[in-house]
Amino acid sequence: MLSRNEIKYIQTLFHKKNRDEQGLFIAEGVKIADELIASGFTMQKVYALQDWANAHANLPGLAIVTEEELKKLSKLETPNKVVAVVQKKEQPAAISDNVFTVVLDGIQDPGNLGTIIRTADWFGVTQVVASPDTADVYNSKVVQSTMGSIARVDVHYAPLEDYLSHTTLPVYGAMLNGRDIADIEPAKPCLLVIGNESRGIRPNVQPFIQEKIAIPKIGGAESLNAAVAAGILLFKLCAG
Amino acid sequence: MLSRNEIKYIQTLFHKKNRDEQGLFIAEGVKIADELIASGFTMQKVYALQDWANAHANLPGLAIVTEEELKKLSKLETPNKVVAVVQKKEQPAAISDNVFTVVLDGIQDPGNLGTIIRTADWFGVTQVVASPDTADVYNSKVVQSTMGSIARVDVHYAPLEDYLSHTTLPVYGAMLNGRDIADIEPAKPCLLVIGNESRGIRPNVQPFIQEKIAIPKIGGAESLNAAVAAGILLFKLCAG
Repeated sequence: MLSRNEIKYIQTLFHKKNRDEQGLFIAEGVKIADELIASGFTMQKVYALQDWANAHANLPGLAIVTEEELKKLSKLETPNKVVAVVQKKEQPAAISDNVFTVVLDGIQDPGNLGTIIRTADWFGVTQVVASPDTADVYNSKVVQSTMGSIARVDVHYAPLEDYLSHTTLPVYGAMLNGRDIADIEPAKPCLLVIGNESRGIRPNVQPFIQEKIAIPKIGGAESLNAAVAAGILLFKLCAG
Repeated sequence: MLSRNEIKYIQTLFHKKNRDEQGLFIAEGVKIADELIASGFTMQKVYALQDWANAHANLPGLAIVTEEELKKLSKLETPNKVVAVVQKKEQPAAISDNVFTVVLDGIQDPGNLGTIIRTADWFGVTQVVASPDTADVYNSKVVQSTMGSIARVDVHYAPLEDYLSHTTLPVYGAMLNGRDIADIEPAKPCLLVIGNESRGIRPNVQPFIQEKIAIPKIGGAESLNAAVAAGILLFKLCAG
């Protein structure tokens, strides 16, 4: 039986302030939960339907709930068998300066952030550095959209001017007036800066961009979705 | 003053059945509304805040509403000045067989569908053919994610087996076990088939794929988001 207090407690973790205080976050759904468990995340509590629970019988903190109860915990339109309260992972204290890094300047849509992390993971990029106003990586929608990649990619939050003024790697930045990426012979490793969904890379960050790069435009759209643009650039820089 | 009946009527248009019957759809937000007007869509009714209305004084069907009233009409968390009731565009009856075409096999997430249309538009692709179970292009979340590209891209719904058995163009399909796209010299124009978010291209469609293509994977993610994958493949096929 799920108590009213438990439901309330879970709800608090949908807010960043409480996640930060508690060092916990919420992960929903079969795929994400399984990925996090496989990657060594510690589950503080896992609320699951009987059939999922049967397949994870030895999991500490496991509580069986009904579909009705799961609905009360979930933020998804169609809850997917499991809602887990997970301990945040220990982040390496320092940002590494010798690995390919995706740098995010104010990505605000949680779906975009999660998708960029997932895409980075696909291309073997394990480090993201985000401006402090980028969406929180432990926001449940971000966790959801990473599809488990949150387990393999370290996301650091840091003032970008400070970070970029200390890096020794080449800095590429996605800008509409940049050089066509077809003409680029990318240096590896490097940094790729992706700007905010509507205003792009901010003026205070632009001076640190050593090479402005752009995706060739053929048709009528004014811009690309930030995660799609990141995907095309990562493909070109890491695998193209 | 917004009447209760008007609010109810708008709500009905968030359902496909009613959109189909009325030949209308809902578009929200400044950017989308402006793009649709510029592209010659007919606005049946436009509910807007005073400042947006001032800039569009001669628009037929314009009704000024308060922020409170706009909230009652909107599906957005943060309503953006305007909610428009728009006439669907007249689709060319026949699917063209001599233009680059994106073929969608059961894309179900409205955000993915809208983003794919936006990306197609960026790369100059003006035709999409979607299986009947793909999300409805006039769903308000799809309209939103196209960022106006819905005005420039024709989306046809057709049984894919039928369509693909009649095309004379080469058919590429995104499949995890496909040939690395780095090794492909794409034929133009061609068809690019993108499969469903979780199960990929269905077995009944696979026999029509002449060349299976894949995005090289370096890291740990199991898959890419469908819109990101479409973006990388479109880049490679149209502009790479």
